[in-house]
Amino acid sequence: MPESTERKPLTELSGEDLARLESDLAAEFEEISQIGLGLDLTRGKPSAAQLDLSERLLGLPEPGDHLAGKTDVRNYGGITGIAELRALMAEILGVRPDEVYACDNASLSVMYDLISFALLFGTEDSPRPWIEDTDRKWLCLVPGYDRHFAVTEKFGFEMIPVEMGPEGPDMDEVERLAADPAVKGLWAVPIYSNPTGLTLSDHVIERLAKMETGAPDFRVIWDNAYVVHTLAADFPKAANVLEAAANAGHPNRFWQVCSTSKITFAGAGVSFLSATESELAWYGKHAGVRTIGPNKVNQLAHVRFFETAEGLRQHMQLHREILVPKFEASRSALEARLGGYEVASWTDPEGGYFIDLSVGDGTATQIVEMAAKAGVALTPAGAAYPYGKDPNDRHIRLAPTMPPLDEVEKAIDVVGLCTLLCAVRKAQAV
Amino acid sequence: MPESTERKPLTELSGEDLARLESDLAAEFEEISQIGLGLDLTRGKPSAAQLDLSERLLGLPEPGDHLAGKTDVRNYGGITGIAELRALMAEILGVRPDEVYACDNASLSVMYDLISFALLFGTEDSPRPWIEDTDRKWLCLVPGYDRHFAVTEKFGFEMIPVEMGPEGPDMDEVERLAADPAVKGLWAVPIYSNPTGLTLSDHVIERLAKMETGAPDFRVIWDNAYVVHTLAADFPKAANVLEAAANAGHPNRFWQVCSTSKITFAGAGVSFLSATESELAWYGKHAGVRTIGPNKVNQLAHVRFFETAEGLRQHMQLHREILVPKFEASRSALEARLGGYEVASWTDPEGGYFIDLSVGDGTATQIVEMAAKAGVALTPAGAAYPYGKDPNDRHIRLAPTMPPLDEVEKAIDVVGLCTLLCAVRKAQAV
Repeated sequence: MPESTERKPLTELSGEDLARLESDLAAEFEEISQIGLGLDLTRGKPSAAQLDLSERLLGLPEPGDHLAGKTDVRNYGGITGIAELRALMAEILGVRPDEVYACDNASLSVMYDLISFALLFGTEDSPRPWIEDTDRKWLCLVPGYDRHFAVTEKFGFEMIPVEMGPEGPDMDEVERLAADPAVKGLWAVPIYSNPTGLTLSDHVIERLAKMETGAPDFRVIWDNAYVVHTLAADFPKAANVLEAAANAGHPNRFWQVCSTSKITFAGAGVSFLSATESELAWYGKHAGVRTIGPNKVNQLAHVRFFETAEGLRQHMQLHREILVPKFEASRSALEARLGGYEVASWTDPEGGYFIDLSVGDGTATQIVEMAAKAGVALTPAGAAYPYGKDPNDRHIRLAPTMPPLDEVEKAIDVVGLCTLLCAVRKAQAV
Repeated sequence: MPESTERKPLTELSGEDLARLESDLAAEFEEISQIGLGLDLTRGKPSAAQLDLSERLLGLPEPGDHLAGKTDVRNYGGITGIAELRALMAEILGVRPDEVYACDNASLSVMYDLISFALLFGTEDSPRPWIEDTDRKWLCLVPGYDRHFAVTEKFGFEMIPVEMGPEGPDMDEVERLAADPAVKGLWAVPIYSNPTGLTLSDHVIERLAKMETGAPDFRVIWDNAYVVHTLAADFPKAANVLEAAANAGHPNRFWQVCSTSKITFAGAGVSFLSATESELAWYGKHAGVRTIGPNKVNQLAHVRFFETAEGLRQHMQLHREILVPKFEASRSALEARLGGYEVASWTDPEGGYFIDLSVGDGTATQIVEMAAKAGVALTPAGAAYPYGKDPNDRHIRLAPTMPPLDEVEKAIDVVGLCTLLCAVRKAQAV
């Protein structure tokens, strides 16, 4: 979190200075509100320019090209997905092809299904289906991904937040909580986490693999949504969690997922599940009652488009060229508005789709409301917490990827304005 | 069921004639078994020639063509599916576009999800989630579709078979059973049913819509998988079950599904859910936790491919040209082998994907085993019944669509041979 060394606490300003600042900012706020900007920083969506990078995919596979090995991708079957794409993604994830299924268009669906299968039927390690434990709990790293929390809320888990630090959660705390047999699992976005951009350290991963848990069927849902979504020239190394877990004597601990939604087309890509072969067989046994198989035509299209894992990585560098200026513009706009005062901090992610803006305690909701009045839509304050409740009302998730660059600059500037105005008014009220 | 007028009961044959027939057939069976035919009549899959009809779809939508109205199909969102495709399928189903969602690649998944949502969360008409009723039952028209039965078996429903007649089930029986509050629903394939090829009459539909049920949240899963899959020049008229149900005061009774799996690509098409707007909203509320939306790129591809409902119907006539000879060859082969004796009957469907062969009581399993030895794979006997148990061991589902025409002829001939041989041996044993 880059903080300017010259940031001044608002408490050092005189009442007169505060009043003048408030008056200037309020006037500016009113002026902007008149315009009706209609800008949107709510969701982590790729921009049209990013989607254009994959335009060629629309025409793939070409007519006449419908075989994946000996498999006609136009016909039923194959719950595992096609071998070529499993191998490609296995290389990206650093696991064996046998440890990957290529699925349909949404990793969220795979995660939902995994939990629903465990809930209704139990995992291979479960003494009974999870639903038979009316007292069931789930650990949520916070701030985190609202759609994760919506799934476990829907399935009746009591969600326990664990704060993220720079290297991940406090593992002593995680281990203490996971000792409770009612705790069935944990949500994690290991690389460039949503929304903090933080990456779990090897040490944290090691402890997640090793820790003893009260539930014999404890699972970590390892949502590697941003595994190749670097904003730097290098790619992060995906830890082989399957190997780490096997070495620690908990082979089935990790359910890893990822998708090409933010690589090719959002909601029209391919998702993946990576787990031990026995765990994949368990998933396939249940998923095979729900479907005969995934859309293999789309899978073959992706094989033709990327060709290799290296091709996929090269493609991600094209995304990076589009995204870096937006993240830089966001940082500059925040710095320009907020750099002079001690009122907020923000993450400077090396990858992923978000910036986490931390504002004064108890003001995030108000800032989001003000931004809305000024024509900038933000993710609701609290969305990054279970039940939508940030106990400190402090975090605002900024998603700068979708709007064009000039709109990102303008929108973030408005957020900065609202943040500062809110802080000034709070300082005045003291 | 076309029965030759000259069919002779085997009981009219002398012991000597029976022995000679057995000896001839057994010799022929042995001869064929040596060859190792490797023919497959197990599943209702389209043939490569049928899939070729949609080859152009692989290249659609063309690069540059990614807008459905104002919606960029390459980005997230839109749980309802794209308007253009909803309207097209609404016309096919004879309902309003607002009464259709375009979903992902498998109607089986939509059906599974509908039941799982009702099970875990209850429908809008449910006093409580279905799972809270440990005694829950489901009506199954038989012979029926094994994958339907697998879903309700998995979810712990006691499945109650109701025999299909030429116009549908005995509705007195259905009404009597549905009066039990534990009975939550009924599986139906209303047009060219799997595997009988039978179509429910308007009268049966009317009574399904009108009948009073013990459960206030009773649902008919109306799997219109073969709504346009005619083997005749005309198309069947899809009854507007939503209107019928609304008029009868049970607006939410029908959950209708269909897909393009057997229209374009099997497992890589688009599935649909048709229900009242409030019921669709209920589905969307739950499905929206599982996914951000369906693959809209594939939906737009289908719009471009069909253009209109009439375009879809014209496309189905091309399928018909491929399928009719296979069904005719099947009928001829059965008639040639079995037409002289009173040993079996078979359906003569006007559409759909299957022929239902009814053999002597207690011999279906044996015939399927014999056919396997002779190199012809058939769906396991009993598969068309809940729990895979045909109480009379009588029905064999023949799926003649996938193999090339000459293989269909050969395979059906072998089935006829096995059927007759089995019947002769049974007659000898009396």
